[in-house]
Amino acid sequence: MTFNFTVNKSSDQGRLGTLVTPHGTVQTPAFIFCATKAAMKAVTPVQMHNCETQIILANTYHLMLQPGGETVAKLGGLQKMTGWRGPMLTDSGGFQIFSLGHGSVANEVKGRRSSNRPKTLLKINEQGAKFKSYIDGHTYFLTPEESIRIQRNLGADLIVVLDECTPFHVDKAYTKESMRMSHRWGLRSLSEWQVYDNGTQKLYGIVQGGVYPDLRQESCNFVNDHNFFGIAIGGSLGADKQQMHDVVSMTMNLVRKDRPVHLLGIGGISDIFAGVKQGIDTFDCVHPTRLARHGGALVRPHNNLNQNREHLNLRNSFYVNDDQPIEVDCGCETCTWASKGYLHHLLKAQELVAMTLISIHNIYFINKLMQAIRQALTDDTIDNCQKYWCNPIKINKG
Amino acid sequence: MTFNFTVNKSSDQGRLGTLVTPHGTVQTPAFIFCATKAAMKAVTPVQMHNCETQIILANTYHLMLQPGGETVAKLGGLQKMTGWRGPMLTDSGGFQIFSLGHGSVANEVKGRRSSNRPKTLLKINEQGAKFKSYIDGHTYFLTPEESIRIQRNLGADLIVVLDECTPFHVDKAYTKESMRMSHRWGLRSLSEWQVYDNGTQKLYGIVQGGVYPDLRQESCNFVNDHNFFGIAIGGSLGADKQQMHDVVSMTMNLVRKDRPVHLLGIGGISDIFAGVKQGIDTFDCVHPTRLARHGGALVRPHNNLNQNREHLNLRNSFYVNDDQPIEVDCGCETCTWASKGYLHHLLKAQELVAMTLISIHNIYFINKLMQAIRQALTDDTIDNCQKYWCNPIKINKG
Repeated sequence: MTFNFTVNKSSDQGRLGTLVTPHGTVQTPAFIFCATKAAMKAVTPVQMHNCETQIILANTYHLMLQPGGETVAKLGGLQKMTGWRGPMLTDSGGFQIFSLGHGSVANEVKGRRSSNRPKTLLKINEQGAKFKSYIDGHTYFLTPEESIRIQRNLGADLIVVLDECTPFHVDKAYTKESMRMSHRWGLRSLSEWQVYDNGTQKLYGIVQGGVYPDLRQESCNFVNDHNFFGIAIGGSLGADKQQMHDVVSMTMNLVRKDRPVHLLGIGGISDIFAGVKQGIDTFDCVHPTRLARHGGALVRPHNNLNQNREHLNLRNSFYVNDDQPIEVDCGCETCTWASKGYLHHLLKAQELVAMTLISIHNIYFINKLMQAIRQALTDDTIDNCQKYWCNPIKINKG
Repeated sequence: MTFNFTVNKSSDQGRLGTLVTPHGTVQTPAFIFCATKAAMKAVTPVQMHNCETQIILANTYHLMLQPGGETVAKLGGLQKMTGWRGPMLTDSGGFQIFSLGHGSVANEVKGRRSSNRPKTLLKINEQGAKFKSYIDGHTYFLTPEESIRIQRNLGADLIVVLDECTPFHVDKAYTKESMRMSHRWGLRSLSEWQVYDNGTQKLYGIVQGGVYPDLRQESCNFVNDHNFFGIAIGGSLGADKQQMHDVVSMTMNLVRKDRPVHLLGIGGISDIFAGVKQGIDTFDCVHPTRLARHGGALVRPHNNLNQNREHLNLRNSFYVNDDQPIEVDCGCETCTWASKGYLHHLLKAQELVAMTLISIHNIYFINKLMQAIRQALTDDTIDNCQKYWCNPIKINKG
């Protein structure tokens, strides 16, 4: 049995599942950490393993530009090359192309509006997307078929169809046309995948449709009706957290229940709880590791004097003489010996190992969070679990 | 027995020793890795331990500026704070003050002459040295007594007297006056150390005297005749490698044989062999780890196509599709899974973990080198050992 997804328990608190891949089994709900350019930033595969990580992802966009899918294949594929021998997912490349292209879809999808990024997207048409490399300015033309071919070279267990990441600021007509083109791209991705399918990779479809219930319905119907292994929830999730929760909730009511569902790019602790309660099986986000590199250490509320945040800012001189670890009741390698005062010193001294040590804590923290969530789903105690891990969700309007 | 040094075997090939400290025992000859600001750059203490490291050092100069000796003491001293629970050494702070002050003593000591660094040394007199912090411009006045007080707060096992690092370009008269002031500073350091000696730290004296045999003789007499635990060879070692070897050889003939001898700032493989053959017990240098951060991986000659170098430059596009490790016959964590092609990709992609992975290799490499040297001294086979680990020394004139 190289691939399988089983729902072990399901309720209005969320669902427990088992996702089997050729490189190992993932207990869900699970968090997928971002090894963007085929490397966890500042963390080795041995450290990822010691943090009890189940699964990581890499980004096709970055890897197609450098070192290229064929080089990754020559180096043995992602799992051999990176030393991460567990389950992996690659995205289609679309998100970054459109994110960099439109300025920043990431901001738009999450309801933020400003961006100063240079625009590298040159053209989108029915065939695919033309864009410039941010590395050397060369132009690339990514089609659904090419995305699948690259992902085949990369060799992750779970791969994703190319879609257009519809920005938030467009109207319903654009969203609808974009969604329908993404459906056609989904079919082309599926065809390309099926031609060479040798049982080592499975394909996720993506639900689009923005904030519009009828479009989400149409998109769910499309993904439900075709031979995708899993379902990813993409597209704009609205202007604020409340709308995001509403869109995810609406979508989850429409997708079939026998496939793993991935929520793209969401990684705050309270957002994870909201997603779990709506039945999401897997999450990914750069948040835990990016936060760490900026000196932010995730903590549970009982370890946080600031109840408005889910982390400590270790750059704060408040910690200069603090000889206690980030969390005294954490079992990660960092918390067994490193004080907040030392981590503060390392951040001020711009020592790279600060990023490593705080990343180790945040990765372990998220893995323990997901373990706690799975236990709570077993015990029907998700609300208590949520109170222990984060403060009540604050709805951030705009 | 908290401190002890025993010479277990001595010959013209070098000597084997055992250096006992409160934090553990060091088998010599040994290499002391540089954790400059109380952190190995890009490497965690667990990784240092896994690389079979025996001992590391930290720099008083950097730590007195940030976070300050008192903060380190509040955080439990260097060994508790850094998570490195093995033996440690701190230098006096002098080298960096004078290095930054004179432009770069490091270049001068090693016979290189150019430097563009800003000069931060404001004044040297009999009392001590006044300099500006490179961090915030504040002025500091470091005296021999203050250096010992700071090193007491830092808490390393082995500490070093403050000396003036005499530059190379000065004449014999300056070198002589500088050496004699360093001797007076040595006595003041010794007094300050003795007043508070509680058995947890031992003091090294430093031999000065530049390239002049009579001055080296006078300086060795001074260090030999006073109550130092160990002896460090400092000062200018000449204009090129041949002169360096001559100065070290001359000095080693003059120092007493019952104390550990440290050669400051030397870390090339062939230079280590030259030092071992002259009886040096410990070495330190940023070379192995700095080289790694720039993409240089240490290799033995049978793993190197370029017989003029002791390392591979993994930034070279020659390695883009190379699926073999840095050294197939290396047991380090990196070589068990990471290909040169992957490391090349990580360097090009500016992934921090490239520095970690190559540093792990270089640290393990140097530790294995020192193990091999100790075995060769046991077996009287140092020349064969040298042939296996490096090509014949090339004398680099100027």
